[in-house]
Amino acid sequence: MNIVVAGFGTVGQSFAQLLLSHKELLKKAYGLVVKVVAAVDSKGAAVSQRGLDLELVLKYKREHGTVAKVPSAGCEMGLTEVIQGVEADVLVEATHTNLTNGEPGMTHIIKALQLGLNVVTVNKGPLALAMPMLKEMAEHRRLALKFSGTVGGGLPVLAFAKECVKGDRAVKVEGILNGTTNYILTRMEEGLKFEDALAEAQEKGYAERDPTLDISGMDTACKLVILANEVLGKRVTLRDVRVEGITKIKPEDIGMAKSLGKAVRLLGVAEESEVFVKPLAIDQSDPLAVKYNYNAVALTLENSGRHTITGKGAGGRETATAIIRDLISIKERLVMT
Amino acid sequence: MNIVVAGFGTVGQSFAQLLLSHKELLKKAYGLVVKVVAAVDSKGAAVSQRGLDLELVLKYKREHGTVAKVPSAGCEMGLTEVIQGVEADVLVEATHTNLTNGEPGMTHIIKALQLGLNVVTVNKGPLALAMPMLKEMAEHRRLALKFSGTVGGGLPVLAFAKECVKGDRAVKVEGILNGTTNYILTRMEEGLKFEDALAEAQEKGYAERDPTLDISGMDTACKLVILANEVLGKRVTLRDVRVEGITKIKPEDIGMAKSLGKAVRLLGVAEESEVFVKPLAIDQSDPLAVKYNYNAVALTLENSGRHTITGKGAGGRETATAIIRDLISIKERLVMT
Repeated sequence: MNIVVAGFGTVGQSFAQLLLSHKELLKKAYGLVVKVVAAVDSKGAAVSQRGLDLELVLKYKREHGTVAKVPSAGCEMGLTEVIQGVEADVLVEATHTNLTNGEPGMTHIIKALQLGLNVVTVNKGPLALAMPMLKEMAEHRRLALKFSGTVGGGLPVLAFAKECVKGDRAVKVEGILNGTTNYILTRMEEGLKFEDALAEAQEKGYAERDPTLDISGMDTACKLVILANEVLGKRVTLRDVRVEGITKIKPEDIGMAKSLGKAVRLLGVAEESEVFVKPLAIDQSDPLAVKYNYNAVALTLENSGRHTITGKGAGGRETATAIIRDLISIKERLVMT
Repeated sequence: MNIVVAGFGTVGQSFAQLLLSHKELLKKAYGLVVKVVAAVDSKGAAVSQRGLDLELVLKYKREHGTVAKVPSAGCEMGLTEVIQGVEADVLVEATHTNLTNGEPGMTHIIKALQLGLNVVTVNKGPLALAMPMLKEMAEHRRLALKFSGTVGGGLPVLAFAKECVKGDRAVKVEGILNGTTNYILTRMEEGLKFEDALAEAQEKGYAERDPTLDISGMDTACKLVILANEVLGKRVTLRDVRVEGITKIKPEDIGMAKSLGKAVRLLGVAEESEVFVKPLAIDQSDPLAVKYNYNAVALTLENSGRHTITGKGAGGRETATAIIRDLISIKERLVMT
């Protein structure tokens, strides 16, 4: 399977490392042999139809800040030029999230689908802004568009949901979808002020230097859009979500909730009538009341009730594992058709 | 897809009802058209190569206690005679659990595999006693052997685990796998005596009239064997599991645990070195510390940490939903090959 990787930051590099360390296992257990024919970052690309030497690409990225410096493979092309020049089966889109217009991921995904490539994206932006359209593009061309890593990181939330709805029907999805805000809320429960809890989350590497996407609830909203489309079959985008973040929560609110046996959590909720993100006080015994940087998703089904999945959310290595899962399912699909 | 149903008790009947009520949905969403060519119970069978009228079969089972009385289809044959006489793709094995020798399910499954039928079983007995052997038989003949309904009922524990381990490796499985014992332990936490909690579980229909399998820990052990084989790749049977039930637990033990912020739960644990069932005091904040008749399974992965899935366990309708899930995946497999 020939792959082009767009974006070579934390996730892109973790993915390359995982390919190196798990090469034999992937071949043996899933018949998956991956050849990375191009890696692209914001400064250029490394291209080799025979397959890049990933050790070398990682080394040059680390030492020179870009894959464009890799000897004999480096160049200054951008993604759209690159994918026109190589033979590839899959684009792995791992550039940064942009909620204004989804770029550069949006163009990457559209170009790849137009040229007949399957797509695995861990970038939420394009999906949050245009998921119904992108899904239709892929279906129309009978190509795979996979995005396990966008929700829950290493926790297979989407696959779990897909399995649950077989022979049943999902009526509601609720989730703690952002580890940073959940960490902050848990620490506030334990007595910290918002600012101190945020600073601690940043120190521990959970929150970005600019935590706006997290604390405004927008990151949760993006993931909720993906769940609503995929699990409930709703055609919604970020515009359709009512979003409230955690910046207005006071220690008193949390203390009050606690004394009533409740916990304040930033929930994303999608059901028939509405889709919203909002801090809510839920029972401490609710399986969704997870602590620290955990994620949790509850799915309510018509026949078999409410199922919950919990685990640690994103991290470079976890998200890279999700890319591998998606590649395996594309492989199975390629064999089928 | 032609199906033979062995065992027509609560689960078998729920399955027939689900096929009736979801006929159009299954066809539309999954291309799955199911024809039940035979249903067998302990007193005989109803057989029709053109497909049984399930409304009629359900009516006769209800009114006469056996499918053998169905006009023009009823007869006194047993399963092994029936499957030699009909053309079928799948055996759905839903007879009662027997942990002494696995019969009659054991013979049903072996015969079906020998005759080239795929198998979906919700009967744990044969798997608990001989899972490595049965899996080998099926693999050798390139037939499917599916058993989603044996663990977690409607909660897709096995599919979840299978998805988690793609591109990763499971090192430990822990679970609350029996709703009856969990209900009893939760009620004891709330002040009831063991006997009263058990009586209440029976009243609510969670516990069987003979609750021995539940409270002895054997039901948990069966499910643990299935998880250990399927998720950890261990070749184990019921003999390899050290089993302790909940009959010796005193109210004081539970009170003491509670005062320490812990909850006593009957856990099944499988890891590299050992496989055991035992009541353990776990943190109340552990995602496994579910209440009442909930089930929970935690999977520890090498790369992405500990993932947990929780939801209500078995019930006729939930388990029947699991059969449908298995049939859908067999359908996808038939299309593939």
